[in-house]
Amino acid sequence: MAITSLDRLCIHTITTKPLGFEEACTKFAARGVKGISIWRDAVKGLDPNRVKQILKENHLTPVSYVRGGFFPAMDQVQREVAIEDNRKMLREAAGLGIPMLVLVCGAEPKQPLQVSRDQIKKGIETLLPMARELGVKLAIEPLHPMYADTRSAITSLGQANDMAEYFDDDFLGIAVDVYHLWFDADLEREIKRCGRNNKLFAYHICDWNVPTLDMLNDRGLMGSGCIPLKQIRGWVEETGFSGFHEVEIFSTKFWASDQDDFLDKIVDAYLHHS
Amino acid sequence: MAITSLDRLCIHTITTKPLGFEEACTKFAARGVKGISIWRDAVKGLDPNRVKQILKENHLTPVSYVRGGFFPAMDQVQREVAIEDNRKMLREAAGLGIPMLVLVCGAEPKQPLQVSRDQIKKGIETLLPMARELGVKLAIEPLHPMYADTRSAITSLGQANDMAEYFDDDFLGIAVDVYHLWFDADLEREIKRCGRNNKLFAYHICDWNVPTLDMLNDRGLMGSGCIPLKQIRGWVEETGFSGFHEVEIFSTKFWASDQDDFLDKIVDAYLHHS
Repeated sequence: MAITSLDRLCIHTITTKPLGFEEACTKFAARGVKGISIWRDAVKGLDPNRVKQILKENHLTPVSYVRGGFFPAMDQVQREVAIEDNRKMLREAAGLGIPMLVLVCGAEPKQPLQVSRDQIKKGIETLLPMARELGVKLAIEPLHPMYADTRSAITSLGQANDMAEYFDDDFLGIAVDVYHLWFDADLEREIKRCGRNNKLFAYHICDWNVPTLDMLNDRGLMGSGCIPLKQIRGWVEETGFSGFHEVEIFSTKFWASDQDDFLDKIVDAYLHHS
Repeated sequence: MAITSLDRLCIHTITTKPLGFEEACTKFAARGVKGISIWRDAVKGLDPNRVKQILKENHLTPVSYVRGGFFPAMDQVQREVAIEDNRKMLREAAGLGIPMLVLVCGAEPKQPLQVSRDQIKKGIETLLPMARELGVKLAIEPLHPMYADTRSAITSLGQANDMAEYFDDDFLGIAVDVYHLWFDADLEREIKRCGRNNKLFAYHICDWNVPTLDMLNDRGLMGSGCIPLKQIRGWVEETGFSGFHEVEIFSTKFWASDQDDFLDKIVDAYLHHS
């Protein structure tokens, strides 16, 4: 079904990284954007009540707090520091009224991926009671395999589903980001499995540029690359997902451009190519 | 089991791209390397009999001819051109006495991956009779998902195994390259499935640099990155695989370095870190 309104459009603050938090909120609101996912750096040093006031004034629904995780480390002390930092992020999210913390799970290139995966499992297990208590959900974001060295030992939706099924906890689900998963031959099946399990907590969109010039900061605007966005959204919606469509674009090129113009492009690309 | 001899060490000509074919052969042989995989460009314009003579003089076994494939295209004429070119490569391989053609299967970003996958299947089907007739095996090389836009719609060993099982033909198997597959949570299982099916035709090694600075030409020397090479070789050997270990390193950095020194490093890294 075509997208005809902006009611479910959410933008990640990092998408318009050059903008300050309040400036981003007013510019999002001016275009009719309804949701915002907040990166920790974007609100660093701001009073939580002021953040909530800005959100309220701009009629913006906070969707996700980004990003916790990074559980694996060779050293136990470092792993405990990571867990403590995740606890802090859960408290921050609760304080800001953000209902979900996205987990970029992490990986440590000096140890086997399986060890990192076990440490991720342990980290999530440790955090879940606090997540429940604070009412902040955790969303595992499986990342593209090109980030398996240092960013995520969870590199497929299948693995994230396995993990979510293992815990079977209402406060643990999955963030499906098309950038990381679009090529997966099992994507439709795994999205449906995720939905059946009630674990599809978030849906992130952007596009894969052809060619991609940088492994991290060359994501494309929806419609400019090769990701079958409408097909994937179809699978997501077939599960009954009714959450936001979160635009998360890391792009040196767009960050260097006029952000008003970029936001206009995002709204247009959202309506026509997502 | 530790590697104690160079009897199964093979090097791809592209690994030492700056060297001419004969120069590469003499330098490989001088170090005790026993196998060579030949990229088409490396022997372009050379008389096939001369190539065979150089191989013989240097006691080098030709392992793979690289690389056919690239079957998908929007346009049928283009797809036929691709198949014709693959036929030509099969004849070239046979003429050079090379027993296997590696297939980088291709992908067309303007069409769905599934369409590209169907075109790959059709391409392989078309080539198999000629492959059998010439006695040149075809090896599907699943590529890393970061190449799913333009290089390969086959991005996992599982998919390659599906394809190989579909044809169930002695002349169709798989080239397992650690660079493309190391992160796969199902890798051990899929390597064993590949072996059980007698489809493990080739084993390619290098390493994943942390960080990786270029998506194509920043592969690492074995032991310098995060790929668990010994573990993966263990899985490969458990299948009964007794073929060559093919060093395939694309590296702007190493290509710019002294190639004698680089070859010494390869031999050392092969013996100690593979």
